[in-house]
Amino acid sequence: MPAEDYLAECKEYIDEAIPLFLPEPDTYPVSIHESMHYSLSAGGKRLRPTLLIAATEAVGGSRKDVLPFAVAAEFLHTYTLIHDDLPALDNDSLRRGKPTNHKVFGEAIAILAGDALLTQAFVLMTNAFLMEAIPHENILRASHEMAQALSSTGVIGGQVVDLESEGKPIEASTLEYIHIYKTGFFFKSCVRVGAILGRADSQQLGAISRFGAHIGLAFQIIDDILDIVGDKAKIGKDVGSDVSKNKATYPALFGLEESRKKADSLVEEAITCLKDFDERANPLRDIALFFVQRTF
Amino acid sequence: MPAEDYLAECKEYIDEAIPLFLPEPDTYPVSIHESMHYSLSAGGKRLRPTLLIAATEAVGGSRKDVLPFAVAAEFLHTYTLIHDDLPALDNDSLRRGKPTNHKVFGEAIAILAGDALLTQAFVLMTNAFLMEAIPHENILRASHEMAQALSSTGVIGGQVVDLESEGKPIEASTLEYIHIYKTGFFFKSCVRVGAILGRADSQQLGAISRFGAHIGLAFQIIDDILDIVGDKAKIGKDVGSDVSKNKATYPALFGLEESRKKADSLVEEAITCLKDFDERANPLRDIALFFVQRTF
Repeated sequence: MPAEDYLAECKEYIDEAIPLFLPEPDTYPVSIHESMHYSLSAGGKRLRPTLLIAATEAVGGSRKDVLPFAVAAEFLHTYTLIHDDLPALDNDSLRRGKPTNHKVFGEAIAILAGDALLTQAFVLMTNAFLMEAIPHENILRASHEMAQALSSTGVIGGQVVDLESEGKPIEASTLEYIHIYKTGFFFKSCVRVGAILGRADSQQLGAISRFGAHIGLAFQIIDDILDIVGDKAKIGKDVGSDVSKNKATYPALFGLEESRKKADSLVEEAITCLKDFDERANPLRDIALFFVQRTF
Repeated sequence: MPAEDYLAECKEYIDEAIPLFLPEPDTYPVSIHESMHYSLSAGGKRLRPTLLIAATEAVGGSRKDVLPFAVAAEFLHTYTLIHDDLPALDNDSLRRGKPTNHKVFGEAIAILAGDALLTQAFVLMTNAFLMEAIPHENILRASHEMAQALSSTGVIGGQVVDLESEGKPIEASTLEYIHIYKTGFFFKSCVRVGAILGRADSQQLGAISRFGAHIGLAFQIIDDILDIVGDKAKIGKDVGSDVSKNKATYPALFGLEESRKKADSLVEEAITCLKDFDERANPLRDIALFFVQRTF
């Protein structure tokens, strides 16, 4: 199955599940629940939950068993977007072509909706004990992994350094920190969580961790490249203008050519990490290739 | 042991543990970690972790075993305070006599520090599986309880209704919703979590739940009363001015006398809930009495 089909299939699976895993939009108090549903239904490729599912299937687990965790991964991702967009942070008005959460519901509700999605993710992950399919210890280990990925030494750490680097000259090591922690860490944790819940042995978990680290970084590099290519087409600015603005991106530091090469080689290495896996890991391999081939 | 001594002993125990359960203040990125430590060291009576400990001791559990959960309860409480104080919410400049988090670290870091404390609470609670003292299932049930207490149908729900009721005439049922969800629910969950981790049987857990619900509401009523009494001494305003401002408080709706009576009777009922518990529940009983006798 081509990566696009697997991604489309998983996206549909996640999209259908999301509304079932949080209070309905008309639950009292209504504003907060409408706000949570609004940002969750704003589209998105559902890459993180799809990777989580692909990783669990690669080690023989079932997507049905890990569904609460897959949905939780999307809740966590969405919470980071809502808070990132706030006026005090990136101050963005549009996200995926729709007004950002605080533009529609106001800042207070947007802050609380982010908080509520972060909290709801843990409601789901710790509720998984109701299912008999996965040992309690694995559920705890997976929840712990997710919490650490989102912590002040994970995604939040990356956001802080990103914020504090704005408009300043940036070193390669700082850029790498931002990319690894703001984006890469969470991708890696999603595949690790899938593997842990699918009862991967330690060798499999090690391989999947390295795979996740590589594709997480590749994803961010391609994101940076697409930003520039998009901007170029739109406003005709070139790489040099990004460098002079000290924008913290890979192409700004290393150029487009070198960045593309780096992403390609990261994905190649990622796929090599899976050399001992059978065909059940094909979706993981295909998604890795999709990461560098994507144009959106 | 009088309630004051038990509270002081637990406060010291919690105060000493807090810095050990999060990255040190000089951890990179420094601003976020300084910000987290700042709000956690701003004082406070540590009532929620103390109640959690008292509840576990009431059913034969040990404070050492539940320490990560007790610390997590304080992290969760502190996160709600940091976000509550933000300009978009209550816009408070002072908390416990010190500048609020966003006044010192700026709005962006304050938002992220709240997020990080909420996340760190789940890092701690799910890490508890490292300990052999408590069955994994109880750890999961307790973590789930905490997550639900803080959710959009818990503390966050209460905050939303509180925000949306500002400056409007308020009905008794709305006030009760705010009090129960914004404050009471979390108190109740702290004693439930302590009991669950201490392996309470279902009868004990039921009794402790009712106890927690009663003292949670009593705490908030007394808080409302102290606000008015404090204000009176300071700026000489009377109950009538609160009523005309449509401030959502118990005394504003029912008067001081009636509110005091309500709090007293809630605490009496709370203590009755513990009638089948032995002397190990004395700290819980004493804290309940302390709740209505306190003057700060």
